[in-house]
Amino acid sequence: MRKNLSIKTSLSPVYFEKYTDNESIVVVIDILRATSVISTAFHYGVKEIIPVQTLDQALDFKGKKNYIVAAERNAMLIEGFDFGNSPFHYMNQGVQDKTLVFTTTNGTKALDMAKNHQTVTASFVNFDAVANYLIDQQKNVIFFCAGWKGYFNLEDSIFAGKLGERLLEKGFSTTDDSTLSSVYLYQKSNTDLFSFLSSSSHRNRLKTLNMEEDTKFCLQPNFQSNIVPILKNKKLIKA
Amino acid sequence: MRKNLSIKTSLSPVYFEKYTDNESIVVVIDILRATSVISTAFHYGVKEIIPVQTLDQALDFKGKKNYIVAAERNAMLIEGFDFGNSPFHYMNQGVQDKTLVFTTTNGTKALDMAKNHQTVTASFVNFDAVANYLIDQQKNVIFFCAGWKGYFNLEDSIFAGKLGERLLEKGFSTTDDSTLSSVYLYQKSNTDLFSFLSSSSHRNRLKTLNMEEDTKFCLQPNFQSNIVPILKNKKLIKA
Repeated sequence: MRKNLSIKTSLSPVYFEKYTDNESIVVVIDILRATSVISTAFHYGVKEIIPVQTLDQALDFKGKKNYIVAAERNAMLIEGFDFGNSPFHYMNQGVQDKTLVFTTTNGTKALDMAKNHQTVTASFVNFDAVANYLIDQQKNVIFFCAGWKGYFNLEDSIFAGKLGERLLEKGFSTTDDSTLSSVYLYQKSNTDLFSFLSSSSHRNRLKTLNMEEDTKFCLQPNFQSNIVPILKNKKLIKA
Repeated sequence: MRKNLSIKTSLSPVYFEKYTDNESIVVVIDILRATSVISTAFHYGVKEIIPVQTLDQALDFKGKKNYIVAAERNAMLIEGFDFGNSPFHYMNQGVQDKTLVFTTTNGTKALDMAKNHQTVTASFVNFDAVANYLIDQQKNVIFFCAGWKGYFNLEDSIFAGKLGERLLEKGFSTTDDSTLSSVYLYQKSNTDLFSFLSSSSHRNRLKTLNMEEDTKFCLQPNFQSNIVPILKNKKLIKA
């Protein structure tokens, strides 16, 4: 390590403005499911992703050549859209070289809030790639947990803890209680994340909607993507 | 248990408005040090405590018969006041039957935000008393972690986790990720809270100011108070 690099964690969007500065890299985390979907879509060949805030903005792209439009609200797919917020939707050859236009309940809002920063997206699907990218960049880091409608959630914090632990091992440091708390939560959950989260709010929300397979994949994906999605001019591209 | 009782946790003041309702009991938690001081002062005989927001409001009571005025800002005692925010200040006979007027950086702000609710204060000093009170009341509960200047902190959340675990054992339930997270953090920290918090932000703040003894006492007090301070007409009295 050349410098004294720090980690801070915004446990939900309400804290983000307090944590931001103009120098740190922002890591947007929305494990169930937006940033897991983003990693998966890139892994299966999507060229770029345009996160948008409203269904109307997304529908503007509908039918345009080489575009896919996807939307989710309150964990559900929206009628009239090509895809939703399930990683399995993107595991097919049809997505290759396409531009994905994407709006979700929490994740794309977080991306919008972070659009003026050097911002990447992270999930268990691209964990190692993001960790290595952050270690290479040698900048301070802010983990931005998307949460659920402004609230703290467990899975995003646990992921921040896993990434935080890795960076702390690589010479980063922190005095931020939110980061320490996330690392402790990750260590506590380490043996079986899926069981650990069994009573968590969003897992229960997805369970009700029969999205257990999505949850399993997002928490314990069966492949690793080496792509780090980075936000440039309001588009996610490969770093 | 007669009813299905729930626990929610506001991890810092920014969430409190989202969590409140008109029915739940609010438990204000500011372990380092306001709610620990409040418990200690009552245990040593203080009759009632008036939490105020400003130094000026507190000074209005200065010199009045049977009043003690106490203030803390940024962890430090303020000149011109009788006492500060250390529990040791209140461990003397001089406080008996006095009214304590008290303003602190975080704790008294939280009390002000909670003033229209059925609100009690909790700390490791009166843990059992508060737990038993909540079990007896048979109402939903909101833990309100005072944090530090609006931010999440580790010690308040861990305390919320300890109290949450006790209530869950007694038939309360929760689907709130903040509460679950707090319980997990408490379980992780359980063996030695003082060491666990060694890198936490506020402990370091107090360490710099030579307040290690305060911290030790607040985390592992050597007595238990059976008093539950409850907020009535903007005053804390014994429940």
